[in-house]
Amino acid sequence: MTTTGTPVDNGVNVEFLLGARGMLADAPEAANFKWRATCEWQNGTHSRSTVEGFFGLGEEQKHRTSRTFDADHPEVFASEDNGVTPVEYVLVALASCLTAGVAAVAQNRDIQLHSVAATIEGGMDVRGILGMDSDVRNGYSDIKVTYKIDADASPDDIKALVAQSQKRSAVYDIITNPTNVSVEVA
Amino acid sequence: MTTTGTPVDNGVNVEFLLGARGMLADAPEAANFKWRATCEWQNGTHSRSTVEGFFGLGEEQKHRTSRTFDADHPEVFASEDNGVTPVEYVLVALASCLTAGVAAVAQNRDIQLHSVAATIEGGMDVRGILGMDSDVRNGYSDIKVTYKIDADASPDDIKALVAQSQKRSAVYDIITNPTNVSVEVA
Repeated sequence: MTTTGTPVDNGVNVEFLLGARGMLADAPEAANFKWRATCEWQNGTHSRSTVEGFFGLGEEQKHRTSRTFDADHPEVFASEDNGVTPVEYVLVALASCLTAGVAAVAQNRDIQLHSVAATIEGGMDVRGILGMDSDVRNGYSDIKVTYKIDADASPDDIKALVAQSQKRSAVYDIITNPTNVSVEVA
Repeated sequence: MTTTGTPVDNGVNVEFLLGARGMLADAPEAANFKWRATCEWQNGTHSRSTVEGFFGLGEEQKHRTSRTFDADHPEVFASEDNGVTPVEYVLVALASCLTAGVAAVAQNRDIQLHSVAATIEGGMDVRGILGMDSDVRNGYSDIKVTYKIDADASPDDIKALVAQSQKRSAVYDIITNPTNVSVEVA
């Protein structure tokens, strides 16, 4: 690890995030966010979800653009594969959450990242969702994430980066701990 | 509810799914699936995930096409909003899983669907991810899904449809129950 005159820049505005802590300490109600999506059934197992607005910092917010996401089952389930499966979206959520965290923590620790790549795999016994065996759960039996990181830091510091990202990750928390979900018909 | 000569068609091949149960009862190892994604850090909190292959029915499988998903933080977090947030992908996963289930259960129960729309909202106190208060969790405090369904069925039958979809949903299980996640550095 060498120290040069070039400041570490991973593209994360850590000053802003630290400033936000001060602001939210004074106005904790601004920390209450509501994230949203809508989902429209298309046909068969195919649906299209839209993400555009959310609530936070005390007011309605909008993403720069509205984005849509198709989900479907694959052809081996006799579906049309018009999108990735819902459970693959869970993997995208987890990998992207941990990866954003790695960048933010690296910035905060003055570690220059060069590349960060994750592979993620979730094991599932589909006898659960097919209702064949009540001892088999519907969801993942386990999820494994493996990082390959090139950074100006020692292997131990890189491991510590990933561990800290995990500790602060929203999606890691959602998956590893129970979250209350209510489903209603209007 | 009227009975006509037109067979119910929600586009779901229920015969195949029922047949799969028989096949997997004889060859339970074919039920072991591995769903996968890769994720590449771009810059800042922006990452791009790719979903293409998975393992199931005893062999490597591929989606019809490779698909990529950008994730980022919004501009109110001083990020560039190059994609939806990881936690919004969780909402897409849950809404699309429940919606596919509604279509499959409706087909199995001979209920013709005309439209299925869900709104989903997850509440989050962002003081958790900012590490401001260890009593505040990182993930969602609660998630609420609301369905509006037009189908040839009574309100009670429609509620029962949604309840059965919830019961068999992989993503509902992943979110409401703890799932083991391991994160490693290669």
